[in-house]
Amino acid sequence: MDLYDVLMRRRSVRNFEDKPVPEDVVDKLIDAANNAPTACNVQPLSIVTVQEAGRRAKLARMVKRQPWVKNAPLTMIFCLDFWRLKRWAELSGVAFRGNDAFSHFLLGYADVMCAAQTVVILAESLGLGSVYVGKVPYVADDVRAYFEMPAYVFPLMLLCLGYPKTVPRNVPKFSPSVIRHRGRYRPLSDDDVRNAFDEKYGSFDGNARRYFERVLVEAVEAGEQGEEGWLERSRERMTKLAVKSNAEFVFKVRYRADLMVENNAEAIGTFRNAGFDCFK
Amino acid sequence: MDLYDVLMRRRSVRNFEDKPVPEDVVDKLIDAANNAPTACNVQPLSIVTVQEAGRRAKLARMVKRQPWVKNAPLTMIFCLDFWRLKRWAELSGVAFRGNDAFSHFLLGYADVMCAAQTVVILAESLGLGSVYVGKVPYVADDVRAYFEMPAYVFPLMLLCLGYPKTVPRNVPKFSPSVIRHRGRYRPLSDDDVRNAFDEKYGSFDGNARRYFERVLVEAVEAGEQGEEGWLERSRERMTKLAVKSNAEFVFKVRYRADLMVENNAEAIGTFRNAGFDCFK
Repeated sequence: MDLYDVLMRRRSVRNFEDKPVPEDVVDKLIDAANNAPTACNVQPLSIVTVQEAGRRAKLARMVKRQPWVKNAPLTMIFCLDFWRLKRWAELSGVAFRGNDAFSHFLLGYADVMCAAQTVVILAESLGLGSVYVGKVPYVADDVRAYFEMPAYVFPLMLLCLGYPKTVPRNVPKFSPSVIRHRGRYRPLSDDDVRNAFDEKYGSFDGNARRYFERVLVEAVEAGEQGEEGWLERSRERMTKLAVKSNAEFVFKVRYRADLMVENNAEAIGTFRNAGFDCFK
Repeated sequence: MDLYDVLMRRRSVRNFEDKPVPEDVVDKLIDAANNAPTACNVQPLSIVTVQEAGRRAKLARMVKRQPWVKNAPLTMIFCLDFWRLKRWAELSGVAFRGNDAFSHFLLGYADVMCAAQTVVILAESLGLGSVYVGKVPYVADDVRAYFEMPAYVFPLMLLCLGYPKTVPRNVPKFSPSVIRHRGRYRPLSDDDVRNAFDEKYGSFDGNARRYFERVLVEAVEAGEQGEEGWLERSRERMTKLAVKSNAEFVFKVRYRADLMVENNAEAIGTFRNAGFDCFK
């Protein structure tokens, strides 16, 4: 299968076989991450590999509701690491202030995600599946303490990896023409906006189980891995609010548009606690 | 060649053949980007493809000093796009505040970079080379105006693509053991910090040309593509400051540790100008 086909078949996998990832495969994934593009070639990246069952369970309790963090044989914590650069600068008699620089946060975050996505794709080509867990900045204080991260190391993203037990096949995507703009940005007309999302999500037909497998697949998977409540709460909220369209479901149940700005100070605070005071 | 070998050979390419990227290849790259992982499957991504010579030249003038933006047959502008989601929410009678939510910025940035790095890797496997240009948030006001981006669309990253004329082969990387931490983060000892960087950069031997090909390859490439000044200024600064170590070169000449925090307000302002008021 060529890489295009691998990438087009790839789906986030949350259900893994109870089978470790061999160490030589882990080494290859780390090598590839280490060779990913990085601005100015500074490589502000560290990866904590979490394989031991007790540590996986502890990490899963921190991020909550995502049992694949416990069940995956390998989770990588992708960290923005300015500690190493800063220490080298200090030992060399040079000041380093990148931890307080917004531009260096932006570039560093890009570097970290380039490495992470390189791991996703190499893993996929080797028969592994993976899923990102983006909640980690919100629980960064706990993660940093438990995994003994010093100042200037910030856990930006988790990636759970393992051999897939099942792969979701119903996850909908936009038509590629929706995301591509030739030569300049062309805003969609109102009708095209509605069509883009309706074609993506399909009809809102009242078959909650089938609908959830497209639109809330992680709650379905969590339920199957013994995590009670998420699916039920979503269904109850759907009924209570008399949700009657894809948009209402997405923004009122799944991706809560009303709550989105409430935790800004807390999240920015976790960065500040780690020595990153760059959002000002 | 298997994907691991492709990834280990990959280097950022800044010198391209004068040969267009065929449209069916561009379509594949967009397809793959469109199928990249995205938090909550919201796909807050738009890609502006810049192929016409006049527009490439204009974009190159905006980011300055990086002639590959003009010379590459294809540049993709990877945008965080909340306009489409926000418009859909409005048309559906639901509020959307993700543009002011720090968490949704973090997740959206990760989504955009997952898509971009997917393009890098698929392109590489198809014989193309690429290089990121991370400066675009600093000139986002100009880029947004010229490419007619509405509010809530922010250009986070450029990716220049084309068939490689030359590929840099001397770019140094850490030993992979430097970035991997098993089970918990283990700070390097002072000696190990020094060794990690010295092994990466090699000896500081006074052969400026050979040193620059490892440590400042983009200035060398820019010079070869007719961009005067960068290499010369770096060499002059190196002499003036009597730079005598890798750390001094990296932090005083290449990755200016003393200037890093000076532009925070300006960069955050470009986000605010685009309707993203999420860093507070």
